[in-house]
Amino acid sequence: MIVGRVIGSLISTRKSNNLVGSKFAIVEPLNVMHSGTNERVVAVDIIGAGIGEMVLVATGSAARIGCGQESAPIDAAIVGIVDDENDLQ
Amino acid sequence: MIVGRVIGSLISTRKSNNLVGSKFAIVEPLNVMHSGTNERVVAVDIIGAGIGEMVLVATGSAARIGCGQESAPIDAAIVGIVDDENDLQ
Amino acid sequence: MIVGRVIGSLISTRKSNNLVGSKFAIVEPLNVMHSGTNERVVAVDIIGAGIGEMVLVATGSAARIGCGQESAPIDAAIVGIVDDENDLQ
Amino acid sequence: MIVGRVIGSLISTRKSNNLVGSKFAIVEPLNVMHSGTNERVVAVDIIGAGIGEMVLVATGSAARIGCGQESAPIDAAIVGIVDDENDLQ
Amino acid sequence: MIVGRVIGSLISTRKSNNLVGSKFAIVEPLNVMHSGTNERVVAVDIIGAGIGEMVLVATGSAARIGCGQESAPIDAAIVGIVDDENDLQ
Repeated sequence: MIVGRVIGSLISTRKSNNLVGSKFAIVEPLNVMHSGTNERVVAVDIIGAGIGEMVLVATGSAARIGCGQESAPIDAAIVGIVDDENDLQ
Repeated sequence: MIVGRVIGSLISTRKSNNLVGSKFAIVEPLNVMHSGTNERVVAVDIIGAGIGEMVLVATGSAARIGCGQESAPIDAAIVGIVDDENDLQ
Repeated sequence: MIVGRVIGSLISTRKSNNLVGSKFAIVEPLNVMHSGTNERVVAVDIIGAGIGEMVLVATGSAARIGCGQESAPIDAAIVGIVDDENDLQ
Repeated sequence: MIVGRVIGSLISTRKSNNLVGSKFAIVEPLNVMHSGTNERVVAVDIIGAGIGEMVLVATGSAARIGCGQESAPIDAAIVGIVDDENDLQ
Repeated sequence: MIVGRVIGSLISTRKSNNLVGSKFAIVEPLNVMHSGTNERVVAVDIIGAGIGEMVLVATGSAARIGCGQESAPIDAAIVGIVDDENDLQ
């Protein structure tokens, strides 16, 4: 999983029917994880993370299947909130 | 999901039978997402995005399964149109 | 999907039984797609592309499932030939 | 599979129900593997690796399915401990 | 598929039960394929490649499913040996 910080959210009104009800968060990977360009991802949030929180993001089929949304076109999902970012230092 | 802008379309006459009827859009990731080389992708468009629109692109198995085209060789699909690109700043 | 040009082919006599009969093409991503290092891939060709043709390559599970070779260890497949490369400019 | 070293662990109290009981390790890819930016990953540890141990990490659907946690949103898992790191020189 | 050269092997005694019996090879992508950092991967060898041989490596779910080890945490597998490396020039 990737570790990143929630830096915003995103609204899409015209979208796949299978995404209706999904909340989209913009997540930026942490420098401390050596994430290169820090490419931001849009992840569906099933946990209820707030702006500024440090989160675990699952990518690929794990995002869809593990979150119980097998028929939704989701390739990234927030699946946990990190308790203490000092663990990453 | 990736966020990018539709910069064009592409026609393929000789293609897999499972792709007949699919519309191919060329999408360029946004600089504001820190997307590195901004590598462009060809995504199947199930939403009906126009040139210049900012879109959400799902990649991997999410593109195929989530769009209800489980037997088509699709690894990227436009699954939403972003309402307001100021959300990404 | 990636867009690239077929620059050669490759023969493998000792291979997985599930690959017997597959034709392997070497595809180089196009600079115009901003593909970074232009890392070449070996893709199974189900379309019959010739050297120099510009093709669509599907990667990941799409290559295998979408091409009807679910039990073959294929992670990249040529799934279409691009009609007009001017569409990419 | 990636080869990396366990450099820490991470606690997430608020997380997907399907991750309850999972132990998260922070793994840094080895320079000797030419891993570029050495981007760190968070991997579920099913083996019981300790800090400093050199491990094999499986990514993608292999992490979830191969570890018998098909419904958990896991995209990286420690699946082995490397006996002798001199094998990598 | 990636093309690389087998540069070594790796032993893991403590590993997932689903990996018992698997042989791990260290594969380095070829410069001629423009593979960027040449990041090495550990691939399960189902073909019996020797050190120095040039091989085809399938990644992702193709490695696991295509090799008939659907329940093993394998994300890369050697699936063929390249007959003539001059084909890559």
